[in-house]
Amino acid sequence: MGADRFLVIGGDAAGMSAAAQTRRLRGASDLAITVLEQGPDVSYSACGIPYWVGDVVSDRDRLIARTPHEFAAQDIDVRTGTRAEAIDLDAGTVRTVDGQTLGYDHLLVATGGRPLRPPVPGLDADGVHGVHRLADGADIRAAVAAGARRAVVLGGGYIGLEMADVLHARGLAVTVVLADPLPMALLDADMGERVCKAIGDMGIDVQPDQPVREIETDADGVVRAVRTDAGSYPCDLVVLGLGMGPEVSLARDAGLRLGETGAIEVDRTMRSRSHPEVFAAGDCVQTFHRLTGEPAHVALGTHANKQGRVVGSVVGGRAARFAGVLGTALTAVGELEIGRTGLCTTQAEAAGYDVRAETIEGTTRAGYFPGAAEIAVKLVSDRGSGELLGAQVVGGPGSGKRIDVLATAIWAGLTAEEFAGSDLSYAPPFAPVHDPVLVAARVASRAERG
Amino acid sequence: MGADRFLVIGGDAAGMSAAAQTRRLRGASDLAITVLEQGPDVSYSACGIPYWVGDVVSDRDRLIARTPHEFAAQDIDVRTGTRAEAIDLDAGTVRTVDGQTLGYDHLLVATGGRPLRPPVPGLDADGVHGVHRLADGADIRAAVAAGARRAVVLGGGYIGLEMADVLHARGLAVTVVLADPLPMALLDADMGERVCKAIGDMGIDVQPDQPVREIETDADGVVRAVRTDAGSYPCDLVVLGLGMGPEVSLARDAGLRLGETGAIEVDRTMRSRSHPEVFAAGDCVQTFHRLTGEPAHVALGTHANKQGRVVGSVVGGRAARFAGVLGTALTAVGELEIGRTGLCTTQAEAAGYDVRAETIEGTTRAGYFPGAAEIAVKLVSDRGSGELLGAQVVGGPGSGKRIDVLATAIWAGLTAEEFAGSDLSYAPPFAPVHDPVLVAARVASRAERG
Repeated sequence: MGADRFLVIGGDAAGMSAAAQTRRLRGASDLAITVLEQGPDVSYSACGIPYWVGDVVSDRDRLIARTPHEFAAQDIDVRTGTRAEAIDLDAGTVRTVDGQTLGYDHLLVATGGRPLRPPVPGLDADGVHGVHRLADGADIRAAVAAGARRAVVLGGGYIGLEMADVLHARGLAVTVVLADPLPMALLDADMGERVCKAIGDMGIDVQPDQPVREIETDADGVVRAVRTDAGSYPCDLVVLGLGMGPEVSLARDAGLRLGETGAIEVDRTMRSRSHPEVFAAGDCVQTFHRLTGEPAHVALGTHANKQGRVVGSVVGGRAARFAGVLGTALTAVGELEIGRTGLCTTQAEAAGYDVRAETIEGTTRAGYFPGAAEIAVKLVSDRGSGELLGAQVVGGPGSGKRIDVLATAIWAGLTAEEFAGSDLSYAPPFAPVHDPVLVAARVASRAERG
Repeated sequence: MGADRFLVIGGDAAGMSAAAQTRRLRGASDLAITVLEQGPDVSYSACGIPYWVGDVVSDRDRLIARTPHEFAAQDIDVRTGTRAEAIDLDAGTVRTVDGQTLGYDHLLVATGGRPLRPPVPGLDADGVHGVHRLADGADIRAAVAAGARRAVVLGGGYIGLEMADVLHARGLAVTVVLADPLPMALLDADMGERVCKAIGDMGIDVQPDQPVREIETDADGVVRAVRTDAGSYPCDLVVLGLGMGPEVSLARDAGLRLGETGAIEVDRTMRSRSHPEVFAAGDCVQTFHRLTGEPAHVALGTHANKQGRVVGSVVGGRAARFAGVLGTALTAVGELEIGRTGLCTTQAEAAGYDVRAETIEGTTRAGYFPGAAEIAVKLVSDRGSGELLGAQVVGGPGSGKRIDVLATAIWAGLTAEEFAGSDLSYAPPFAPVHDPVLVAARVASRAERG
């Protein structure tokens, strides 16, 4: 009898975390681990691509956390350039496009995400790029190096804003075209307006409320402009910043059930709900919101890593489960830092809460300390119980990471009043004597009473 | 009949927070508010004094949050330069040194703290300074301006280290003389060693394990050196950085009971335990540790503000109580950031926990992102329950404020494992995909199992 076989489809955050964690718990004589990755790289940072494009990080290889060679040293057999074509759940095999058939005892589907694409003509034109694989980053870098002067970014989520920021910093004229009225759709309108104004002030053109209708191309099929109902925006580069959907074609074809978000339905141990003998993790799965229990799809490396680790623990024989998401997100555009967590007002209302929302303004450091920057903090809470439901921060340097304090308070189920009493640090270079997050909590807890 | 009378002794954080909060709840026709302050200023930032000395903040008045004039506009009668000499609890009056006798219906004792002084000869020499009143800052600034070249800082708490840092930055040769083996006594030894090495590398001389024996002076009574058993450290400036004790002479003489910390015993509504008709708040009171319930004395503006606010609410007719302290503290020395919260290992052991402590090293940003700095995170937890008890961080820019995330997790009573699953933000300019605080929690939660 040979060793038990663990086969992983997809070699980025979820897949490689699972492989590494399993190996920590089970040696090579006990378990063979094979990873199939269609691309040339594993364990790369898709989130780092904007910074590579922006030349903030100049070396592509810095975005790669670990190479197949490094995994090989742990007896993890990583096969790059190897695309899985079909899963046969009955036979317990995976067929690759190059004709191999691999058997498995444990299977993980970690096929990741794919950039969302608006259903418009011209999207396959030369000059239209997603922000997903390192090859996308290389293509955009090449376009900039070749003299691209005008870029249109479709979508104002964090990837879209980061790309707008770095392309603007590299000297391109940048227009962000939004289907929504404001960027960062998971911010409340008052906070989104702060973002919109700030990026406009930086010289980035924002065109809201304009679903894209067509990518216009020249005779050679090269992008020439982006057309909306309101106008046509000339450009030589289009970046898709509309977010990521789950890549589920392999799973769907194999018969794994998809949830209402379109991603693979899994339980908290990351087992497929329709086929518990198969694991799935990362950007291809449907997860759940910590507060509401509702299904959610959030494509983010941090969740993928944790979910992969859960799979690795379970395959390794140790109990583990994924604890859900709050939808915490953080980004920077120039010096502006934007963070959010939990439910925004509309989400909280939809979930049936009696919503109280308050925004306060403060400074990141003692007001007299050099570098004190403006910060706005918004808290969403339940009027009846006082429970904190969501938080948003927009401000200068030092603002963004404060979202983690609020995410922790929400994760722990604190009320605004309980959190308002908490013993957060105070020192003039780091905070005013009343940290803005506590001021926000105090205002929210006072609001509850009155 | 006149209005009800609220008399406040001491016009800094606790006193003025109480006065302002009371006024928000009760108008001037209903309640007269009088504040007696012995010094020239109210509502000033003692924590800002090091940065004024360091010329990081050049204008003294920037350290003053609000002036007596501004309070007067709210019908709060602030009498600076007015020292209370005695409280007559039976008569319900306070006598001032200039011979006034003021009656009250509600009394708040907010006499603050005083710099701790070692019991050695020479401490009253010319050139020895506390870091307490703005006048102290002015004196030290004047000494530097007059050409002081060598400074000895007694004590390595945060005020001591901040003063060492700013004096060093202003070109003085600085020696920190410690009675303890390491600076920052409320850090575990391994973390204290990181601090000690880093400040030594900056060129600040640290002399541990040397209780001071004498301040040597010249014939004119001017400081000349600090002598310990190991040597004599020549200097023309001595700074007391030994921490703050409670200023309780007025309260003690009036018969208010002091606790084992030497500070005024109060309940959670900030009423004196021996005389519940009297409130006390701020650096002069004994508070309690959130985790252990044990008495604690922590002189810090953030607590003083919150406690003063509790008093103001109660006098204003609204229920309120102080929720305790974790001992959260944060400081910077050069680019080094140092934070702590909750119980350190020795405190946790003394409190009867079965202590597990683990330190991890990581980076503040994605490893490939410019400005990624080293950070060490230590977590103290209870081996049996997994409950988080304490946390310490030492590292480069971006490290320090992470202590707030840990303070919130501890405040909420999370276990290491519960916290390890939490949805903290990830973006390359702000954090690695595994934030170091989560890596620490994961290691701690794994340790619990093994």
